[in-house]
Amino acid sequence: MTQLKIDAEQQASLIATAHAAADAARAMTLQYFRGTSLGTESKLAAGFDPVTVADRGAEEIMRKVISEMRPDDAIHGEEFGPKEGTSGLTWVLDPIDGTRGFISGTPTWGVLIACRGEAGVHLGVIDQPYIGERFFGGFGVAEVVGPHGVKPLGVRKDVALSDAIIFTTFPEVGTPADRRGFENVANKCKLTRYGMDCYAYALLAAGQIDLVIEAGLQPYDILGPIGVIEAAGGVVTDWQGKSAKNGGRVVAAGSQALLSEALDLLKDA
Amino acid sequence: MTQLKIDAEQQASLIATAHAAADAARAMTLQYFRGTSLGTESKLAAGFDPVTVADRGAEEIMRKVISEMRPDDAIHGEEFGPKEGTSGLTWVLDPIDGTRGFISGTPTWGVLIACRGEAGVHLGVIDQPYIGERFFGGFGVAEVVGPHGVKPLGVRKDVALSDAIIFTTFPEVGTPADRRGFENVANKCKLTRYGMDCYAYALLAAGQIDLVIEAGLQPYDILGPIGVIEAAGGVVTDWQGKSAKNGGRVVAAGSQALLSEALDLLKDA
Repeated sequence: MTQLKIDAEQQASLIATAHAAADAARAMTLQYFRGTSLGTESKLAAGFDPVTVADRGAEEIMRKVISEMRPDDAIHGEEFGPKEGTSGLTWVLDPIDGTRGFISGTPTWGVLIACRGEAGVHLGVIDQPYIGERFFGGFGVAEVVGPHGVKPLGVRKDVALSDAIIFTTFPEVGTPADRRGFENVANKCKLTRYGMDCYAYALLAAGQIDLVIEAGLQPYDILGPIGVIEAAGGVVTDWQGKSAKNGGRVVAAGSQALLSEALDLLKDA
Repeated sequence: MTQLKIDAEQQASLIATAHAAADAARAMTLQYFRGTSLGTESKLAAGFDPVTVADRGAEEIMRKVISEMRPDDAIHGEEFGPKEGTSGLTWVLDPIDGTRGFISGTPTWGVLIACRGEAGVHLGVIDQPYIGERFFGGFGVAEVVGPHGVKPLGVRKDVALSDAIIFTTFPEVGTPADRRGFENVANKCKLTRYGMDCYAYALLAAGQIDLVIEAGLQPYDILGPIGVIEAAGGVVTDWQGKSAKNGGRVVAAGSQALLSEALDLLKDA
């Protein structure tokens, strides 16, 4: 694969495709959110991982939009098999991140979209359809469009760990070791909150909170947030400080200084 | 005090007043939500209980609206001293329930309004200004106005404890005994979620979730939710099955059967 150069025309095409896909997924998911018959079924017989008609419908419609607008790009989604491409660019889709939040009616789930190349994530979207709020990062743009209109995104810096607000989705975090790692950091923060699914990453990009630590993630759970957070000036790595692009144990921070403090507390977990 | 009879004209006046107060509080709080200088200060030196300019401003504007529209009613709010009345009706206000959620940027805090008399709560409002969503219950009305337009509220019935979705705001719940009580119930449920502040009560009224259990509440934390949930067909009591109107340990359920199961598991806590 040759080194990919993305010129202004390509950038505009990618941005337009991301918004078109997010628009389509928003309309699809809202048909089912807070409905009475979600058609949930259990993906994992042993656990509780609901998949809804909305989840599959939203991925299908996003694949259709992207395939039409960008036929040479690859597509990897949560629900269906990978579509190969020739452009060197791959769209990574999580049609409903936070299915437990979705079935509970909380406005915390999101549609996650990323476009990545060899060099990293070029573009990320976190869309919360019910609020009507879209967090976008990429190609020099970092903004949220929602109830307050269009606002720039930007992490907050110079927050000491003892003043930090930290989020994870549920207190167990993952394995007992995952939980211990999270608690090592959370115990030194000012405020710990739960239950926000992918919306926590959006709040970090918006400068409202300072740390998000999770475990057991898939690539499609984190690539969209990476695009948004990096565009807003934040950092996302795994618990060893390496790339988080493969998911697993992830830490997102508003600053490199805060990330370093968190990694130091996570390294023995 | 004579037995209070509330005729149709009075009902319309009370409903209009509740909406006018909620409208005013919504505009006030949105001026400050997700802002950069919240003017937070610590109400409890030892703990973390931020009070914002928005909190006080919203209560002041609601008191002004209610005093003008209903001069004979009493007003009890979180932030200011009680205003006495002569009508036998008292407005109970929590301008921002969920201040930790507010400062974190989560759309989970709410403006809580209740109007109570001798007999109980006549009317309740849970308003989430950022989503633009208002849950209203009272005088035969139970509805939510929000992104999906106007929808009726109604709890879901016939859910077994083993299929129930249960919420509380944070895993510690309150004292160690409070936590044990909550976990006794949550361990028997299908799904436990956190972090929703007063929005969890709204989700119960909307038939999305089945149980909310909390502790350490003030009357103004629960009277608005009681009004909404009772209008939607649900039940709210303390952990002994008695009235929850004084706050403290509270359980809200979609059905009497589910409430009874929960109370049985809470009684030793």
